[in-house]
Amino acid sequence: MTTEKKGHTPKDSHYARLRRQYRDSEPERTGAATRPKQGTTPPHLPTDGLVRLYGLHTARAALENPSRTIRRMLVTRNAMGRLELSEPLTLPFPAEIVEPRDIDKILGADAVHQGVLIEVEPLKAKRLSALGDTRLVLVLDQVTDPHNVGAIMRSAVAFGAGALITTSRHSPSESGVLAKSASGALEHIDHIEVRNLADAIGELHEAGFQTVGLDSDGPARLEKTFSGEKIALVLGAEGKGLRQKTRDTVSALARLDMPGIIRSLNVSNAAAVAMYAARSHLDQD
Amino acid sequence: MTTEKKGHTPKDSHYARLRRQYRDSEPERTGAATRPKQGTTPPHLPTDGLVRLYGLHTARAALENPSRTIRRMLVTRNAMGRLELSEPLTLPFPAEIVEPRDIDKILGADAVHQGVLIEVEPLKAKRLSALGDTRLVLVLDQVTDPHNVGAIMRSAVAFGAGALITTSRHSPSESGVLAKSASGALEHIDHIEVRNLADAIGELHEAGFQTVGLDSDGPARLEKTFSGEKIALVLGAEGKGLRQKTRDTVSALARLDMPGIIRSLNVSNAAAVAMYAARSHLDQD
Repeated sequence: MTTEKKGHTPKDSHYARLRRQYRDSEPERTGAATRPKQGTTPPHLPTDGLVRLYGLHTARAALENPSRTIRRMLVTRNAMGRLELSEPLTLPFPAEIVEPRDIDKILGADAVHQGVLIEVEPLKAKRLSALGDTRLVLVLDQVTDPHNVGAIMRSAVAFGAGALITTSRHSPSESGVLAKSASGALEHIDHIEVRNLADAIGELHEAGFQTVGLDSDGPARLEKTFSGEKIALVLGAEGKGLRQKTRDTVSALARLDMPGIIRSLNVSNAAAVAMYAARSHLDQD
Repeated sequence: MTTEKKGHTPKDSHYARLRRQYRDSEPERTGAATRPKQGTTPPHLPTDGLVRLYGLHTARAALENPSRTIRRMLVTRNAMGRLELSEPLTLPFPAEIVEPRDIDKILGADAVHQGVLIEVEPLKAKRLSALGDTRLVLVLDQVTDPHNVGAIMRSAVAFGAGALITTSRHSPSESGVLAKSASGALEHIDHIEVRNLADAIGELHEAGFQTVGLDSDGPARLEKTFSGEKIALVLGAEGKGLRQKTRDTVSALARLDMPGIIRSLNVSNAAAVAMYAARSHLDQD
């Protein structure tokens, strides 16, 4: 390494150092990650506490998020162009130009990575006391499917919800699948984790929120139930719905009216409709 | 192969050759398909033109659908109970009581089959002339993801849409993944396939529908755009949006207003919100 020291610009040597660190650590890293077991989902799971994010939207949002710590990047020439990165890759973290199949090997052939994979540290979940000045938040009562939680994050950002509140247990941790479904939204929403949801709902009441739980047997239609100037929508998992304790704690239960044979929506669709309805209520004030 | 040569147009013989190649390679293809390759999704793909449906909701809905031809069923004792089937299994098709792992072997470990797998013939897609008396239909312009199309079918049934119209090309065929996402809705909605979407939109106009295309740059908000007593919502694929020809043909383009940083929803979420808004318009008439 010492031979490379002379005659370098500071930028060069920073990049060179990162590249060397990267190369030196290669054998261990790729070893564990590249052998997905037969019949199991390929691992988008954290290794060493890191999260693997992939896909152009997701990667771009992570690159633009100053709170996000990126540990390394694998990118194809094609994806470099689409991410507007140019050679040499002078980034504050190790980055390597690869072929698409190199990313396939790590993520499995099914992940639509669009030529980019970044390994990042998970974002720190916030506490409820960090809830800023917002009029709409979303609360999830043990919704576990990462596709659904990701899609909900995306809709929450689109509808301007200020935070997503989940329980620290029985909620999916940050992952490539969740991030891909969130399509960049993971970087744009405050994710608040609480231990006890009923306590959190109590705190939301103190902060002036009307908490409305969605329930197909709710006594009134959602849009007729809204009354507050700040709304927290509370949704449970499909099939299970809200836990009894949650039902007992919210300001009101309400239903989405559905005239058809099927009386429940996919939870991310229900969340989108509920946020749309809440937004209509809040914006007319 | 030579026996097939006579009386062919050049096009025929090219197609015939491709078909023969396809048929000839069948043993390998299906052989490969039943053995999930490392790192790939296990096949829910049709074999012999059949579709594999799994999951309790999906199976129950298929069992209850008189238009559905079932060819065989594999079911665990546990799932039998939940489907309210009793021994001996006296069903009008072959049925076998199995262990969960027997279904795992067919579907791969990732499919949430809940102890039931049925092999069925696909439902016949209908023609536009079969569109019954309905005030709300959904039109998809090359939305290809089966999870999304399945979730859209579920929402369409929930919101009482009379039909789902797709193009025969560039739309997902019936599959286990689509059916699982539809959570039974596959059996409850008229699926109409058309060759030419612009022509179909023209026919909808003649049938008295206002066709409204969703577009994030649409000139007006969706809820301000509805005017008809019959509404057809037209949605394009994420990223690509509506094709130009589709945009030129619909009665109006409209946007869903989103105040946040992210300005597009997952397509199934957008469809759910749009149907909710359309329903609100139609029900107030």
